[in-house]
Amino acid sequence: MTGFVGVKNMIRWLTTQGIAPTLTGMAEAIEEDFRRWPVFNKTERVASHTPFGVMELMPIADPDLYSFKYVNGHPLNPARGYQTVTAFGVLANVHNGYPVFVAEMTILTALRTAATSAMAARALARKDSTVMAMVGAGSQSEFQAIAFRELLGIRRLRIYDTDDRATEKFVRNLTPLGFDIQVCPSGKEAVRGAEIITTCTADKTHATLLYSADVSPGVHVNAIGGDCPGKTELDPEILRRSTVFVEFEPQTRIEGEIQALPETFPVTPLWKVLAGEAAGRTTGNDITVFDSVGFAIEDYSALRYLYESVSGSPLCEEIDLVADPDDPKDLFGFALAPSPVF
Amino acid sequence: MTGFVGVKNMIRWLTTQGIAPTLTGMAEAIEEDFRRWPVFNKTERVASHTPFGVMELMPIADPDLYSFKYVNGHPLNPARGYQTVTAFGVLANVHNGYPVFVAEMTILTALRTAATSAMAARALARKDSTVMAMVGAGSQSEFQAIAFRELLGIRRLRIYDTDDRATEKFVRNLTPLGFDIQVCPSGKEAVRGAEIITTCTADKTHATLLYSADVSPGVHVNAIGGDCPGKTELDPEILRRSTVFVEFEPQTRIEGEIQALPETFPVTPLWKVLAGEAAGRTTGNDITVFDSVGFAIEDYSALRYLYESVSGSPLCEEIDLVADPDDPKDLFGFALAPSPVF
Repeated sequence: MTGFVGVKNMIRWLTTQGIAPTLTGMAEAIEEDFRRWPVFNKTERVASHTPFGVMELMPIADPDLYSFKYVNGHPLNPARGYQTVTAFGVLANVHNGYPVFVAEMTILTALRTAATSAMAARALARKDSTVMAMVGAGSQSEFQAIAFRELLGIRRLRIYDTDDRATEKFVRNLTPLGFDIQVCPSGKEAVRGAEIITTCTADKTHATLLYSADVSPGVHVNAIGGDCPGKTELDPEILRRSTVFVEFEPQTRIEGEIQALPETFPVTPLWKVLAGEAAGRTTGNDITVFDSVGFAIEDYSALRYLYESVSGSPLCEEIDLVADPDDPKDLFGFALAPSPVF
Repeated sequence: MTGFVGVKNMIRWLTTQGIAPTLTGMAEAIEEDFRRWPVFNKTERVASHTPFGVMELMPIADPDLYSFKYVNGHPLNPARGYQTVTAFGVLANVHNGYPVFVAEMTILTALRTAATSAMAARALARKDSTVMAMVGAGSQSEFQAIAFRELLGIRRLRIYDTDDRATEKFVRNLTPLGFDIQVCPSGKEAVRGAEIITTCTADKTHATLLYSADVSPGVHVNAIGGDCPGKTELDPEILRRSTVFVEFEPQTRIEGEIQALPETFPVTPLWKVLAGEAAGRTTGNDITVFDSVGFAIEDYSALRYLYESVSGSPLCEEIDLVADPDDPKDLFGFALAPSPVF
């Protein structure tokens, strides 16, 4: 039998162990896997582009465990009552190829993205950071806020979104959790005085949410939303003034903020900073940018963290995904026995 | 909710509607989709090769429906009590990207492979064929035999396998179904007098199951087992004497029997024969070879055929794979509501 965590049990898991410890634990798992980056067999993601959106498969493997995520991105979905992004993921045993675990990843992806952002910021932002500006109050925003509070102690947020309803939802969800939230009339206003800036919108265009003139020395920019060819959020001038950190460079060159810059623009792999093989921030005046697009290792880490947490518990259901006859060559007899197996 | 057919319900479906009508219906679905071949967005399959075996993702889409299959190939598995190949598949709605159906595909792949072979042979073999030789009595063999009986009326089989237990299993499974089976002491002996030859073994080497001298004019060769770089079954001289038909040429050049031949060796896409755009067999003395490696369209067809058949019936369970909040931007409120949704 194959383990299964659907939406219902994902929510039970999250509410039982609490979102704060979940994000902290997941960030540890992701950091652990980033530190052993060279061990992973990294494959390109496979995208099917359509007029409505994109459907992607993101596989990766270490010597023992293989994972992949199915994820779609349909920017017009919210207007029709659907989510922009849904996802699910699978773990398989490399030694015999059998799938061992299937999980919903719409919620899990929101968690892993926030955990990855905060993990990167913990390594790159100034230690004395106290205020985070957020441009974009969509699905991902609350998860980001909580991850930054848990990993960096940030409690003061300055938020801007073009959609007032999204901003209201953000305030409604986070105020009871003890955040100090300032709603701002523009992105320019939001970033004023913030040591950390998170950009996270879903527009599938080259939008400029953040102008270089508004970004002060010393700031850390957590650039989440530029994650697709033709989809960026930053004034490229910001990148030129910054040290830019990336997940998997070949993918980020195509999908990240740096798609706007020449191939020769220097970037630093985040994993090298975490593994002590490259410098992160070198002075209090550096601008650091985490040009995040989302990479398969983060999904691998999130899935294995979830699997280790729920395995053997009532939160992990079982589904009969793998036909496994006693005689491996007698699939026919197994499927069509005169006395059916079931 | 997402529809789900696991192993138990796959077997119920198969035994309820019967394997013969299932193979016939599936062959019709595959042929229908092959005829509209240019409509599909065909992506390369993505393989993770490991010392133990390979794990692959095979995506494909038409303008409305996207599908992918996860499949492994671990040749050492049977010696350890596991199956060489296991698989499962997914259908997603191209318009919003939501996964709509998940199904076991270990059994379904056996069905679709047999249906594809028989569909190709119906188009390519001599109409007066009455005897099929089979080299290989593994998991796939009984499915092949039944598909050829249903689509071509073949009832006489000549079988050879190096593994006597596999041959015994083949005879035990098929004799009650009314086949006339001749067990042969060698591949050379098996193919004598047969108008159709099916080669289907799992050895991951350049094996020669069939020598050119043993292949008479007029024969159709259904070459199933050569489906991986470094894995072939035919004496290349047979191919040089034959008209060779393929699924997706770029993939077959790498994985099929023709990997042993120059890139310029001429092949005919099977879909063009089915669509009336290319000739199949032109004389009774042609040797035709279907150099089959398995292509994603066949999985797409098998999944949609199954989905159409079970949708709304008790054979289709539901799993909560997709988080779908009322407010598409309020994933956080959905996952962490003060009064949990579940």
